[in-house]
Amino acid sequence: MDGSDIRIYELRRMDLKGATIIDGFPSVGLVSSIAANYLIKVLNLQHIGIMDSEQFPTVSLIRGNEPLNPVRIYAGEKGRRGDQIVAFISEFQPPANLIRPIAKAMVEWAVEQRCRMIVSPEGLIVDPELRDSADISDLVFGIASTVRARELLKQHSIESFEEGVISGVAGVLLNEGRKRDFDVATLLAEAHPDFPDARAAALVLEVIDRILLGIDFDAKPLFEEAQRIEEHIKEIQKQAVGGGRDKEIPRPPMYG
Amino acid sequence: MDGSDIRIYELRRMDLKGATIIDGFPSVGLVSSIAANYLIKVLNLQHIGIMDSEQFPTVSLIRGNEPLNPVRIYAGEKGRRGDQIVAFISEFQPPANLIRPIAKAMVEWAVEQRCRMIVSPEGLIVDPELRDSADISDLVFGIASTVRARELLKQHSIESFEEGVISGVAGVLLNEGRKRDFDVATLLAEAHPDFPDARAAALVLEVIDRILLGIDFDAKPLFEEAQRIEEHIKEIQKQAVGGGRDKEIPRPPMYG
Amino acid sequence: MDGSDIRIYELRRMDLKGATIIDGFPSVGLVSSIAANYLIKVLNLQHIGIMDSEQFPTVSLIRGNEPLNPVRIYAGEKGRRGDQIVAFISEFQPPANLIRPIAKAMVEWAVEQRCRMIVSPEGLIVDPELRDSADISDLVFGIASTVRARELLKQHSIESFEEGVISGVAGVLLNEGRKRDFDVATLLAEAHPDFPDARAAALVLEVIDRILLGIDFDAKPLFEEAQRIEEHIKEIQKQAVGGGRDKEIPRPPMYG
Amino acid sequence: MDGSDIRIYELRRMDLKGATIIDGFPSVGLVSSIAANYLIKVLNLQHIGIMDSEQFPTVSLIRGNEPLNPVRIYAGEKGRRGDQIVAFISEFQPPANLIRPIAKAMVEWAVEQRCRMIVSPEGLIVDPELRDSADISDLVFGIASTVRARELLKQHSIESFEEGVISGVAGVLLNEGRKRDFDVATLLAEAHPDFPDARAAALVLEVIDRILLGIDFDAKPLFEEAQRIEEHIKEIQKQAVGGGRDKEIPRPPMYG
Amino acid sequence: MDGSDIRIYELRRMDLKGATIIDGFPSVGLVSSIAANYLIKVLNLQHIGIMDSEQFPTVSLIRGNEPLNPVRIYAGEKGRRGDQIVAFISEFQPPANLIRPIAKAMVEWAVEQRCRMIVSPEGLIVDPELRDSADISDLVFGIASTVRARELLKQHSIESFEEGVISGVAGVLLNEGRKRDFDVATLLAEAHPDFPDARAAALVLEVIDRILLGIDFDAKPLFEEAQRIEEHIKEIQKQAVGGGRDKEIPRPPMYG
Repeated sequence: MDGSDIRIYELRRMDLKGATIIDGFPSVGLVSSIAANYLIKVLNLQHIGIMDSEQFPTVSLIRGNEPLNPVRIYAGEKGRRGDQIVAFISEFQPPANLIRPIAKAMVEWAVEQRCRMIVSPEGLIVDPELRDSADISDLVFGIASTVRARELLKQHSIESFEEGVISGVAGVLLNEGRKRDFDVATLLAEAHPDFPDARAAALVLEVIDRILLGIDFDAKPLFEEAQRIEEHIKEIQKQAVGGGRDKEIPRPPMYG
Repeated sequence: MDGSDIRIYELRRMDLKGATIIDGFPSVGLVSSIAANYLIKVLNLQHIGIMDSEQFPTVSLIRGNEPLNPVRIYAGEKGRRGDQIVAFISEFQPPANLIRPIAKAMVEWAVEQRCRMIVSPEGLIVDPELRDSADISDLVFGIASTVRARELLKQHSIESFEEGVISGVAGVLLNEGRKRDFDVATLLAEAHPDFPDARAAALVLEVIDRILLGIDFDAKPLFEEAQRIEEHIKEIQKQAVGGGRDKEIPRPPMYG
Repeated sequence: MDGSDIRIYELRRMDLKGATIIDGFPSVGLVSSIAANYLIKVLNLQHIGIMDSEQFPTVSLIRGNEPLNPVRIYAGEKGRRGDQIVAFISEFQPPANLIRPIAKAMVEWAVEQRCRMIVSPEGLIVDPELRDSADISDLVFGIASTVRARELLKQHSIESFEEGVISGVAGVLLNEGRKRDFDVATLLAEAHPDFPDARAAALVLEVIDRILLGIDFDAKPLFEEAQRIEEHIKEIQKQAVGGGRDKEIPRPPMYG
Repeated sequence: MDGSDIRIYELRRMDLKGATIIDGFPSVGLVSSIAANYLIKVLNLQHIGIMDSEQFPTVSLIRGNEPLNPVRIYAGEKGRRGDQIVAFISEFQPPANLIRPIAKAMVEWAVEQRCRMIVSPEGLIVDPELRDSADISDLVFGIASTVRARELLKQHSIESFEEGVISGVAGVLLNEGRKRDFDVATLLAEAHPDFPDARAAALVLEVIDRILLGIDFDAKPLFEEAQRIEEHIKEIQKQAVGGGRDKEIPRPPMYG
Repeated sequence: MDGSDIRIYELRRMDLKGATIIDGFPSVGLVSSIAANYLIKVLNLQHIGIMDSEQFPTVSLIRGNEPLNPVRIYAGEKGRRGDQIVAFISEFQPPANLIRPIAKAMVEWAVEQRCRMIVSPEGLIVDPELRDSADISDLVFGIASTVRARELLKQHSIESFEEGVISGVAGVLLNEGRKRDFDVATLLAEAHPDFPDARAAALVLEVIDRILLGIDFDAKPLFEEAQRIEEHIKEIQKQAVGGGRDKEIPRPPMYG
């Protein structure tokens, strides 16, 4: 299994040269999901493709009477400042064996499309013992795969992330970026691990806005987005409206 | 494993251009199974093929002194209104790893045969808390893979299914339909998850009749079908008449 | 894994055109094993081949100072009436994942050798509740893969098996026979699931004799065969005479 | 997995035409290991090759300041009577899935090298109940794959092993020998399953000597060999001198 | 899986002909890790490549604001005495199924680069019972794959390691070295299995220095390195600063 199983299908062709990709695969505090969903709404990004694999969940998500794949790609028009945004959104947490193939497929696609950079919004879980001694609750830390991208973070006065471990899709994206000399940056804000943390997402988005967009920033929709996601989680856990053939529902293996 | 393991064998060649496929893989309340079996009887569909895989159960079902594969395809003649019906019937609940390959094989076969549409009858489990506030017990909801198919549902005044999750074979059929621009529709009626729900199947069949067939509709055989399926389930669970070599029967692994 | 792993090796070439194969893979009450072993003795069938697979048990069975593979093929000379008999004998119960490949390999080999038919002797477990109302203890039921073979069973006044499930090797043989239009028949007699049932085997053999052989039939050796098999089972379970390297014997994984 | 994973590497080329191979893979009472190690010492066999597989243990055994693979091949010069001896020694008990590929690789290599025969020394566990009625404690039983080899055993008055089961590498060697008409013999002496049984090894070696070597036979080193092996087992179980990176030693999965 | 999954990527080309490779995969007491990290610092080795596999952990280690792969290769300039050093560093303990492919990839790469030798620093766990009778706490033992390398160890008066077991990457390196006639040496010092043992690493480094480098040796940084590693272990175990998407953090499998 060398990632060949992960495929990206384009539903609509679009010139993405120079665009920045937001990695919306679930992170600590769902910071990435909230941020990516917010950008899709605010920037009115269009559904242009899906990522699919034999090993992804066998579900169709229904939103506004449309069936959706669990992993989707959205993209916007090129902005005035050339800052075109592409967002990957995943409604499910990839299991360990899919993390590397997913990240590799993202980087490969980014290179093919001649995109400029991949940005992973991330939550930072701070050791309660350390939290008292150093208040970092308002800071966004950055780490990048190349000297070029580290320079960019420094130009925008983003605190550098010196020592630690980045795991999951964001971690592999950094390693792949370094290996292939492609710009990948992770932006980290302190987040609560147990629920969707809109405050952390707002901090990261503010930095994304500063680097890439330069638009007016309204935090309110973020908190609504975090709340919406929380409700969706509850909904999915409590009920199976429209859910057919769930494993949870006992049914005889053979009938006739 | 990319679905190549699932094969469709045609026992009898038939022109299926423009036909509508009913997905009879087990759903909530076995709505799909009851509906598909009913159509096979009422429309006198003929057994024209089987779906097979190395991973399907190693059983032969005996019905009327004939051995049958657990997953079968039935088809009828072209109707006056051109509404030829094809039904997939599965006597077993596919495990998670077979759901995607089964759904993909159905869509591929449908495209090859130049069929018009796939329809999945589905049961809808309603959260008891919600049930009081909104009585949906008489409604059939619809969701479709393409703008074209959504338009068709709207023309026949079928309630649109706005938000939720469709899992299993029906969910993958919707996603594949969207990806390949093939018409797939799921029709959902409130169903009881614990037993074969003939009432829900009748509601869905009434809609299928309205869209596709326009024939007189007699609900009685449905309830008989639901009862027959329930008895078969009990029979299979309680006894193993004609059953040979079941895992449940303790036998020494090696003798001589 | 598409069955390619199962191989049949011929130790001795023989013309088997028109022969009937007895499937001796373990069935309920070991009806198949008793019947096949009986025919090997009575008809003096010769060991002509083996079926082998990377996944078969790693044992050699010693009988009369000769090492034997766990799955073997025996064949007799063409009879006066042309009813040449071939028997497959397996000393082990195939696990679920080998059932389909074994059955497919048998049918393929039967077609290659231009054999006439495959017959599976089977035990029928009757629900105790049903047993009182309908005494079937002296009946043999038959089910066949083709119209042709069903006609044959009818000509010999064999009770038809109307509804039920045939699982295991016999079940897949029926399905494959139907798919490939090859004659496969299962003959079922009520059998006790917990021990080798010589009485059931005698009933099935009497039918095989009637259809195929027309020789005088002596039931006594059958009961001896059933007893011999029972003793072998006990022997294998209690002791490991000549058994080397069993998993049950604790030995250090590494020594020196 | 069809055995292609097992490879034999020759460290030194040698003419082995007509040689007899002693199968030293662990048997009941380690009869095979004691016998093979004894022959290596007494006949001064040289280390000529290794058997290797991706699935063999990842260890190097250090003996006399030399690193050794866990499975090795030793060979001697051609004797006066032409009885050249080759020994396979394995320091580990092969798991179930490797038994067949190992035995097949041995037979294939034996055929390629034009060796004469493979001999497996084996321990025989006797049912305590049977032991009283028939004292077999001084007997060596033999079973062989071909009529030719059975004749050889008879010529040397070796008791024939009539009924039973030979499992593991020795069992598959017998089956493969029969299938390929290659001479394979198993020599069995009653052995204790719980510790290395030098007495049983001495009995089997006496027979090997009688058939193949005709040299003077000194039993004492055998008991020393059995004791040495027992000590090695204890040593490996109790300590890990020189052992690095054992699974048993708890170490953090990630550090830095 | 024959090791083809393990790949070495060179970030920077360098002539490594005649260089000695230090195997820094985790050993008992992390002797190898401490020694390799020390050499990287003292000799100012440069990060020239990574070893990667689909099965390596999906993490990026952040050190000094740079993202690092978990397995890395460092190399120095050719020394006055020609003793160029290459170090493999792994931040994770390879699971059993990766040990052989990793060791094989190292040897293959060493041969390709025309390196001179591979040296594995190892910890030796001594049986407490034996420790009293023979004090080996100041000794370094050596074992090598070839006569040539054993001669080298003898020239430098390194105690020979006579009997034992070397497991893990170091064990397979010795076996592969012997098979391919490539010089591999393991240097063992008594180490504590439960924590990073700087004292053992100092002993082994002193020997490496004597054989290869002939530079002044300052033990102090070693103890600092051991302490640093210990702190990193605690840090990783206690917190997940910068850690995103850890399995330990409970998050819903599907949301939206």
